[in-house]
Amino acid sequence: MYVPGPFASPEKQASKNLHNFFNYIAVKIVSAQLESYNPEAYKDLREFLDTHSLNDGDEFCASLMRQSSRHKSLALRILEVRSAYCKHDFEWDNLKRLTCKMVDDSNTKLMREYVLETSDVKEKETGK
Amino acid sequence: MYVPGPFASPEKQASKNLHNFFNYIAVKIVSAQLESYNPEAYKDLREFLDTHSLNDGDEFCASLMRQSSRHKSLALRILEVRSAYCKHDFEWDNLKRLTCKMVDDSNTKLMREYVLETSDVKEKETGK
Repeated sequence: MYVPGPFASPEKQASKNLHNFFNYIAVKIVSAQLESYNPEAYKDLREFLDTHSLNDGDEFCASLMRQSSRHKSLALRILEVRSAYCKHDFEWDNLKRLTCKMVDDSNTKLMREYVLETSDVKEKETGK
Repeated sequence: MYVPGPFASPEKQASKNLHNFFNYIAVKIVSAQLESYNPEAYKDLREFLDTHSLNDGDEFCASLMRQSSRHKSLALRILEVRSAYCKHDFEWDNLKRLTCKMVDDSNTKLMREYVLETSDVKEKETGK
Protein backbone atom coordinates (compact mmCIF):
# COMPACT_ATOMS: atom_id res chain seq x y z
CA MET A 1 0.00 0.00 0.00
CA TYR A 2 1.25 3.44 -0.86
CA VAL A 3 2.00 5.52 2.23
CA PRO A 4 2.14 9.18 1.13
CA GLY A 5 4.05 12.02 2.65
CA PRO A 6 7.44 13.68 2.71
CA PHE A 7 8.25 12.03 6.02
CA ALA A 8 10.43 9.05 6.88
CA SER A 9 9.15 5.54 6.13
CA PRO A 10 6.67 4.08 8.65
CA GLU A 11 9.39 1.66 9.80
CA LYS A 12 11.77 4.56 10.43
CA GLN A 13 9.11 6.58 12.27
CA ALA A 14 8.21 3.59 14.45
CA SER A 15 11.89 2.88 15.18
CA LYS A 16 12.34 6.41 16.53
CA ASN A 17 9.55 5.81 19.03
CA LEU A 18 10.93 2.41 19.97
CA HIS A 19 14.38 3.90 20.46
CA ASN A 20 12.99 6.24 23.13
CA PHE A 21 10.91 3.39 24.54
CA PHE A 22 14.01 1.17 24.95
CA ASN A 23 15.74 4.01 26.75
CA TYR A 24 12.79 4.19 29.15
CA ILE A 25 12.92 0.40 29.67
CA ALA A 26 16.71 0.52 30.22
CA VAL A 27 16.23 3.19 32.91
CA LYS A 28 13.67 0.95 34.63
CA ILE A 29 16.00 -2.07 34.46
CA VAL A 30 19.05 -0.18 35.76
CA SER A 31 16.97 1.48 38.47
CA ALA A 32 15.68 -1.91 39.69
CA GLN A 33 19.21 -3.38 39.67
CA LEU A 34 20.62 -0.45 41.67
CA GLU A 35 17.81 -0.48 44.20
CA SER A 36 19.01 -3.79 45.61
CA TYR A 37 22.78 -3.39 45.58
CA ASN A 38 23.68 0.32 45.28
CA PRO A 39 21.27 2.59 47.19
CA GLU A 40 23.42 5.68 46.64
CA ALA A 41 23.42 5.38 42.84
CA TYR A 42 19.73 4.46 42.98
CA LYS A 43 19.02 7.71 44.84
CA ASP A 44 21.06 9.69 42.29
CA LEU A 45 19.05 8.21 39.43
CA ARG A 46 15.65 8.70 41.09
CA GLU A 47 16.45 12.33 41.90
CA PHE A 48 17.62 12.95 38.36
CA LEU A 49 14.41 11.40 37.04
CA ASP A 50 12.35 13.80 39.15
CA THR A 51 13.69 16.75 37.19
CA HIS A 52 14.40 15.30 33.72
CA SER A 53 11.94 13.97 31.19
CA LEU A 54 12.39 10.57 29.55
CA ASN A 55 10.52 11.60 26.40
CA ASP A 56 13.76 12.13 24.51
CA GLY A 57 16.04 9.27 25.53
CA ASP A 58 19.20 10.70 24.00
CA GLU A 59 18.70 14.10 25.57
CA PHE A 60 18.13 12.39 28.92
CA CYS A 61 21.38 10.40 28.64
CA ALA A 62 23.36 13.41 27.40
CA SER A 63 22.25 15.44 30.45
CA LEU A 64 22.86 12.53 32.82
CA MET A 65 26.43 12.12 31.52
CA ARG A 66 27.18 15.76 32.26
CA GLN A 67 25.70 15.89 35.77
CA SER A 68 28.68 14.39 37.65
CA SER A 69 31.13 11.51 37.26
CA ARG A 70 28.82 9.27 39.31
CA HIS A 71 25.94 10.15 36.98
CA LYS A 72 28.21 9.49 34.00
CA SER A 73 28.63 5.86 35.06
CA LEU A 74 24.85 5.56 35.33
CA ALA A 75 24.43 6.96 31.82
CA LEU A 76 26.98 4.53 30.38
CA ARG A 77 25.15 1.65 32.06
CA ILE A 78 21.85 2.81 30.52
CA LEU A 79 23.43 3.02 27.04
CA GLU A 80 24.77 -0.50 27.45
CA VAL A 81 21.47 -1.91 28.70
CA ARG A 82 19.31 -0.30 26.01
CA SER A 83 21.51 -1.77 23.30
CA ALA A 84 21.59 -5.26 24.82
CA TYR A 85 17.87 -5.21 25.58
CA CYS A 86 16.94 -4.18 22.05
CA LYS A 87 19.10 -6.89 20.45
CA HIS A 88 18.71 -9.83 22.79
CA ASP A 89 15.84 -9.44 25.24
CA PHE A 90 12.97 -7.73 23.47
CA GLU A 91 10.66 -10.28 21.84
CA TRP A 92 10.24 -8.87 18.34
CA ASP A 93 8.10 -11.77 17.08
CA ASN A 94 5.84 -11.34 20.05
CA LEU A 95 5.50 -7.62 19.28
CA LYS A 96 4.25 -8.43 15.77
CA ARG A 97 1.86 -11.10 17.07
CA LEU A 98 0.46 -8.87 19.85
CA THR A 99 0.03 -5.84 17.58
CA CYS A 100 -1.76 -7.73 14.79
CA LYS A 101 -4.02 -9.33 17.38
CA MET A 102 -4.72 -5.96 19.01
CA VAL A 103 -5.64 -4.38 15.66
CA ASP A 104 -8.00 -7.24 14.77
CA ASP A 105 -9.56 -7.44 18.24
CA SER A 106 -10.11 -3.66 18.24
CA ASN A 107 -11.69 -3.80 14.79
CA THR A 108 -14.12 -6.48 15.95
CA LYS A 109 -14.89 -4.57 19.16
CA LEU A 110 -15.54 -1.27 17.34
CA MET A 111 -17.90 -2.90 14.85
CA ARG A 112 -19.71 -4.96 17.49
CA GLU A 113 -20.29 -1.89 19.67
CA TYR A 114 -21.60 0.05 16.70
CA VAL A 115 -23.92 -2.77 15.65
CA LEU A 116 -25.24 -3.22 19.19
CA GLU A 117 -25.80 0.52 19.58
CA THR A 118 -27.71 0.90 16.30
CA SER A 119 -29.75 -2.31 16.87
CA ASP A 120 -30.78 -0.86 20.21
CA VAL A 121 -31.93 2.40 18.59
CA LYS A 122 -33.85 0.52 15.89
CA GLU A 123 -35.53 -1.74 18.44
CA LYS A 124 -36.68 1.32 20.41
CA GLU A 125 -37.91 3.02 17.22
CA THR A 126 -39.89 0.01 16.03
CA GLY A 127 -40.90 -0.98 19.55
CA LYS A 128 -39.61 -4.55 19.05
CA MET B 1 16.94 -8.76 31.88
CA TYR B 2 14.35 -8.20 34.56
CA VAL B 3 11.94 -5.38 33.70
CA PRO B 4 10.23 -4.32 36.91
CA GLY B 5 6.85 -2.77 37.41
CA PRO B 6 3.20 -3.58 37.74
CA PHE B 7 2.58 -2.59 34.13
CA ALA B 8 2.10 -4.66 30.99
CA SER B 9 5.13 -6.34 29.38
CA PRO B 10 7.35 -4.11 27.22
CA GLU B 11 6.08 -5.94 24.13
CA LYS B 12 2.48 -5.23 25.13
CA GLN B 13 3.21 -1.57 25.87
CA ALA B 14 4.98 -1.16 22.52
CA SER B 15 2.14 -2.90 20.67
CA LYS B 16 -0.36 -0.36 22.07
CA ASN B 17 1.68 2.46 20.59
CA LEU B 18 2.06 0.64 17.28
CA HIS B 19 -1.69 0.00 17.18
CA ASN B 20 -2.34 3.75 17.26
CA PHE B 21 0.50 4.30 14.81
CA PHE B 22 -1.02 1.84 12.30
CA ASN B 23 -4.32 3.66 12.59
CA TYR B 24 -2.52 6.91 11.74
CA ILE B 25 -0.81 5.24 8.76
CA ALA B 26 -4.14 3.76 7.58
CA VAL B 27 -5.73 7.23 7.67
CA LYS B 28 -2.86 8.55 5.54
CA ILE B 29 -3.21 5.68 3.05
CA VAL B 30 -7.00 6.00 2.75
CA SER B 31 -6.77 9.78 2.49
CA ALA B 32 -4.25 9.52 -0.38
CA GLN B 33 -6.41 6.96 -2.17
CA LEU B 34 -9.53 9.11 -1.86
CA GLU B 35 -7.79 12.28 -2.98
CA SER B 36 -7.42 10.93 -6.50
CA TYR B 37 -10.74 9.19 -7.07
CA ASN B 38 -13.31 10.43 -4.53
CA PRO B 39 -12.92 14.17 -3.73
CA GLU B 40 -16.15 14.28 -1.73
CA ALA B 41 -15.11 11.52 0.68
CA TYR B 42 -11.62 13.03 0.80
CA LYS B 43 -13.11 16.34 1.93
CA ASP B 44 -15.22 14.58 4.58
CA LEU B 45 -12.14 12.87 5.99
CA ARG B 46 -9.97 15.99 5.96
CA GLU B 47 -12.66 18.03 7.71
CA PHE B 48 -13.13 15.31 10.30
CA LEU B 49 -9.37 15.24 10.89
CA ASP B 50 -9.38 18.99 11.57
CA THR B 51 -11.54 18.47 14.63
CA HIS B 52 -10.59 14.98 15.85
CA SER B 53 -7.28 13.79 17.26
CA LEU B 54 -5.54 10.67 15.95
CA ASN B 55 -3.79 10.02 19.26
CA ASP B 56 -6.30 7.34 20.18
CA GLY B 57 -6.97 5.40 16.97
CA ASP B 58 -9.96 3.46 18.28
CA GLU B 59 -11.64 6.56 19.65
CA PHE B 60 -11.09 8.27 16.30
CA CYS B 61 -12.69 5.40 14.37
CA ALA B 62 -15.58 5.09 16.84
CA SER B 63 -16.40 8.80 16.38
CA LEU B 64 -15.98 8.62 12.61
CA MET B 65 -18.41 5.68 12.40
CA ARG B 66 -21.08 7.69 14.22
CA GLN B 67 -20.73 10.92 12.24
CA SER B 68 -22.88 9.94 9.22
CA SER B 69 -23.34 6.93 6.95
CA ARG B 70 -20.77 8.36 4.54
CA HIS B 71 -18.28 8.68 7.38
CA LYS B 72 -19.13 5.14 8.49
CA SER B 73 -17.88 3.77 5.17
CA LEU B 74 -14.66 5.72 5.64
CA ALA B 75 -14.21 4.26 9.12
CA LEU B 76 -14.76 0.71 7.86
CA ARG B 77 -12.16 1.29 5.15
CA ILE B 78 -9.65 2.53 7.76
CA LEU B 79 -10.26 -0.55 9.94
CA GLU B 80 -9.69 -2.78 6.91
CA VAL B 81 -6.51 -0.98 5.86
CA ARG B 82 -4.91 -0.89 9.32
CA SER B 83 -5.36 -4.65 9.68
CA ALA B 84 -3.99 -5.44 6.20
CA TYR B 85 -1.11 -2.99 6.59
CA CYS B 86 -0.05 -4.41 9.94
CA LYS B 87 -0.09 -8.00 8.67
CA HIS B 88 1.19 -7.72 5.13
CA ASP B 89 2.83 -4.37 4.37
CA PHE B 90 4.73 -3.25 7.43
CA GLU B 91 8.32 -4.50 7.33
CA TRP B 92 8.76 -5.94 10.80
CA ASP B 93 12.29 -7.23 10.19
CA ASN B 94 13.27 -3.81 8.95
CA LEU B 95 11.83 -2.27 12.12
CA LYS B 96 14.09 -4.44 14.26
CA ARG B 97 17.15 -3.71 12.10
CA LEU B 98 16.52 0.06 12.04
CA THR B 99 15.84 0.28 15.78
CA CYS B 100 18.93 -1.68 16.82
CA LYS B 101 21.03 0.42 14.45
CA MET B 102 19.52 3.64 15.81
CA VAL B 103 20.24 2.63 19.41
CA ASP B 104 23.86 1.75 18.61
CA ASP B 105 24.45 4.83 16.44
CA SER B 106 22.98 7.06 19.16
CA ASN B 107 25.15 5.42 21.80
CA THR B 108 28.27 6.09 19.73
CA LYS B 109 27.19 9.66 19.00
CA LEU B 110 26.46 10.44 22.67
CA MET B 111 29.82 9.09 23.81
CA ARG B 112 31.77 10.76 21.00
CA GLU B 113 30.16 14.14 21.74
CA TYR B 114 30.95 13.78 25.42
CA VAL B 115 34.55 12.79 24.74
CA LEU B 116 35.05 15.66 22.30
CA GLU B 117 33.51 18.13 24.72
CA THR B 118 35.65 17.06 27.67
CA SER B 119 38.83 16.85 25.54
CA ASP B 120 38.17 20.42 24.49
CA VAL B 121 37.82 21.57 28.10
CA LYS B 122 41.00 19.71 29.12
CA GLU B 123 42.96 21.17 26.20
CA LYS B 124 41.92 24.66 27.21
CA GLU B 125 42.77 23.94 30.84
CA THR B 126 46.23 22.60 30.06
CA GLY B 127 46.76 25.02 27.20
CA LYS B 128 47.60 22.20 24.73
